[in-house]
Amino acid sequence: MVKKSIEILDTTLRDGSQAASISFTLRDKIKTAILLDELGVDYIEGGWPGSNPKDYEFFKEIKNYSLKNAKIAAFGSTRRKGIKPEEDVSLKSILDADTSVAVLFGKTWTLHVKEVLRTTLEDNLQIISDSVQFLRDHGIEVIFDAEHFYQGFKEDKEYALKVVNTAYEAGAKVVALADTNGGTLPHEVLEITRYIAERTKAKLGVHMHNDTGNAVANSLMGVVAGARHVQGTINGIGERTGNADLIQIIPSLLLKMGFKVLRNPDGLKRLKEVSSALYELAGIHPNPYQPYVGDNAFTHKAGVHADAVMKNTRAYEHIDPSIIGNQRKIVISELSGTANLVNYLDRLGLKLEKKEEKLKRALQTIKELEAKGYSFDLAPESALLVVLKELGYYEKLIDMKYWKVINENGLALAVVKVNSRIEAAEGDGPVNAVDNALRRCLVKDFPELESVKLTDYRVVLPGEIKNTESVVRVTIEFTDGKNTWRTEGVSQSVIEASIMALVDGLDYYLQINKKLKPLLTI
Amino acid sequence: MVKKSIEILDTTLRDGSQAASISFTLRDKIKTAILLDELGVDYIEGGWPGSNPKDYEFFKEIKNYSLKNAKIAAFGSTRRKGIKPEEDVSLKSILDADTSVAVLFGKTWTLHVKEVLRTTLEDNLQIISDSVQFLRDHGIEVIFDAEHFYQGFKEDKEYALKVVNTAYEAGAKVVALADTNGGTLPHEVLEITRYIAERTKAKLGVHMHNDTGNAVANSLMGVVAGARHVQGTINGIGERTGNADLIQIIPSLLLKMGFKVLRNPDGLKRLKEVSSALYELAGIHPNPYQPYVGDNAFTHKAGVHADAVMKNTRAYEHIDPSIIGNQRKIVISELSGTANLVNYLDRLGLKLEKKEEKLKRALQTIKELEAKGYSFDLAPESALLVVLKELGYYEKLIDMKYWKVINENGLALAVVKVNSRIEAAEGDGPVNAVDNALRRCLVKDFPELESVKLTDYRVVLPGEIKNTESVVRVTIEFTDGKNTWRTEGVSQSVIEASIMALVDGLDYYLQINKKLKPLLTI
Repeated sequence: MVKKSIEILDTTLRDGSQAASISFTLRDKIKTAILLDELGVDYIEGGWPGSNPKDYEFFKEIKNYSLKNAKIAAFGSTRRKGIKPEEDVSLKSILDADTSVAVLFGKTWTLHVKEVLRTTLEDNLQIISDSVQFLRDHGIEVIFDAEHFYQGFKEDKEYALKVVNTAYEAGAKVVALADTNGGTLPHEVLEITRYIAERTKAKLGVHMHNDTGNAVANSLMGVVAGARHVQGTINGIGERTGNADLIQIIPSLLLKMGFKVLRNPDGLKRLKEVSSALYELAGIHPNPYQPYVGDNAFTHKAGVHADAVMKNTRAYEHIDPSIIGNQRKIVISELSGTANLVNYLDRLGLKLEKKEEKLKRALQTIKELEAKGYSFDLAPESALLVVLKELGYYEKLIDMKYWKVINENGLALAVVKVNSRIEAAEGDGPVNAVDNALRRCLVKDFPELESVKLTDYRVVLPGEIKNTESVVRVTIEFTDGKNTWRTEGVSQSVIEASIMALVDGLDYYLQINKKLKPLLTI
Repeated sequence: MVKKSIEILDTTLRDGSQAASISFTLRDKIKTAILLDELGVDYIEGGWPGSNPKDYEFFKEIKNYSLKNAKIAAFGSTRRKGIKPEEDVSLKSILDADTSVAVLFGKTWTLHVKEVLRTTLEDNLQIISDSVQFLRDHGIEVIFDAEHFYQGFKEDKEYALKVVNTAYEAGAKVVALADTNGGTLPHEVLEITRYIAERTKAKLGVHMHNDTGNAVANSLMGVVAGARHVQGTINGIGERTGNADLIQIIPSLLLKMGFKVLRNPDGLKRLKEVSSALYELAGIHPNPYQPYVGDNAFTHKAGVHADAVMKNTRAYEHIDPSIIGNQRKIVISELSGTANLVNYLDRLGLKLEKKEEKLKRALQTIKELEAKGYSFDLAPESALLVVLKELGYYEKLIDMKYWKVINENGLALAVVKVNSRIEAAEGDGPVNAVDNALRRCLVKDFPELESVKLTDYRVVLPGEIKNTESVVRVTIEFTDGKNTWRTEGVSQSVIEASIMALVDGLDYYLQINKKLKPLLTI
């Protein structure tokens, strides 16, 4: 039998861009649209052409790209009261955006009609009808967003239903029910959406916000109740607590509820990639605990779990991580038994016994370092260096005799002595200067380091104390183009901690390349 | 009529401590328990006494404190197969913990019984019955956690029901249904929990994991279906994607579903405080988008929203933020119209017209700085300094002529010339050294700076590029004991960016104290 399908409308570029501390450049918006098209969403809401010039530019620019799957939609409001649609600025700006689809929002909540719009309930229905009709007459496909729908329903269910049917009869292809202030709970969404679905011919959609932490559940409940169109954003970014996270909704609809979702049949495999790319574009750190795609989503820490996962993955993994482009990780940490260590070393091609005394000692050292502020979950390779030393698989290749940094307004200069070489180098900031000097020392003996690049650099204050006198933990991510690894340094000085992490990172690469195959999971 | 009440069991110290990159010291655990008791939860699951010495220490240490509301519970598994309860290590370790309550977990899923426990279905029921009975005989209140309950139900509903009734008949006070691998969706939880509730006399609880992003919704659906006991963690920390977040569940149960929750009637007001304290103890940055308590949960950015919120708060706020100890924020940002600025300045006692030319210019400057890597959502006070300058309310009080840092292995020394004074100071790290020297210069003219402390210091790489050559954004949070404010610096050098943020932070305090009352919302 043919699977029912759900339309996905992504509003990352419109509602998502209203998130605090997020701001997309035109280039960011184009990149995002292309990623979304490749993922295979049905609609990309590109922005609110009336609201700011950048959004208008986007609609012009995106025409230079031929999208494979998605239609671009312009967002705007119904006409103002007391004027004709053709005189309305908002509706005109939608026409100017020159898209084949428009997302039009209108009022549903009687209180909002009276207090914000300041008109009669009848006039509001006329406004909705006119505005939808006007865009249809210009050959534009209309998705009507019923603003404050669930709040409106609670105060006047018959009026809320009238709004849905008015938009439908005026020619809206979809009527999306919006929980604009995000205050509705899943069981309410189920009941209310069902009530409407049983009383309208309109194709229903849902637009949820996360103010009670239920945006994902509310979207799914809407679908259970009969909605066949879901609006949301990548990673759930958006105003206040954010919108419904499509990254979490799509796999549940597809893998667990049996719907057909995404126009690209291979889109699901790219879920983590798209999520990561959007974090980069938004300039915010990925949430490691994010369902499905987070770095910790399939990470097993507790010894007992790590053991059980080896016996039967279904016990602690609800899906196979590779389906959505994620992967299993077993972390080395305080709670982990030697089972985790054995599993890690196994990947390095080192076969060891769980009972092995040296392993217990390595674990002890790791625990002591964690007490000092290290967090090896974030930088397992620094822990592996500890293990390799304990096990006697380690050979000292980088012996830093000393480092000096001169950091004067503007100029950052570093001198380092490593092994027998002394090198000086400038840099943008002291850490970069040391990095440059360090590489000058090493690259002659270890040309393979040419291919090693830094891909991330983070400074955090571990534990409770948060002031510049406490220790900082620096985590650096490296790549050689094929593999990625992370190392850490902990010190009272940001520079010193950075240097410890730098040296570990280069050292790890050299140790592995000498004797061991790179970690597969990192 | 008397409100029905829901029991809350917090497992932050047990399941929560299994989160990747989280590790609690004994002192952290005691502090957490006291916070939870003050919040008013019914049970605090303190740990797994069998699993590691730290947990055992906790149960001893916590006896020195008299808790007002919560009972301490020890966690452990049912007895191993083929032995008597009194011979079982796990059950003995629960007795050794000497608590009045035990949370005992047992197998529900036939596949798990066969493959992991490797015994018969009948024997598993016997194991459960024995183990519960054994603890009851020692006068211990037993909460039975049915592991993998929802997975088990899907494969053999009758056996899953038998497990519930077996634990109940053996004397368990609560039987908590666990979604151990977090793969169950809200509508499934509703149906399955209802099925059980209609067929057992046991008091039901729920224990949810967040692998599909539905842990909060699943907990609420369990309650809708009849559960009266909810297990979760503060901020949802836990293995993989985490556990159900009590910080999000409690207010929905209390404010939206009308249940009696928390033994402390004023507990709800402390929700944000408890959430923040746990982030500190766990050493992870708070999630600004967290429902209810996040810094952005009641933050309004888009001009249109900011306007509407002023007209009618219910339009974009599902509850009054003060009820849970949070507050409304209007952010200054790229998307914000001058309405936001006016609102901000209003709080500073500066009455201005929306149309004011100077405001438009200030907004222009702010946008230019944001394009360079500033994010004033994170540090509104740096933006306010820009505004005050444009409006002519600014008087130069800190004129830094130059700064020099000598940073040699171990020693960090700074010399600064501010206004007419030159001061040198050492510090832990270059930033702290400059901070100390700067204060030595200023405190003579501005003794009020004595009371200003740094409460947070963060370095991030804004935008896409992530390597030590890109610019970094340093955000510093200050407090004078009453108010909190945040300032920013952006530069290629961590030290320079830090100094920019430091100077802004002290400068802001001086400007405000000279002419203006402190911001209320910050």
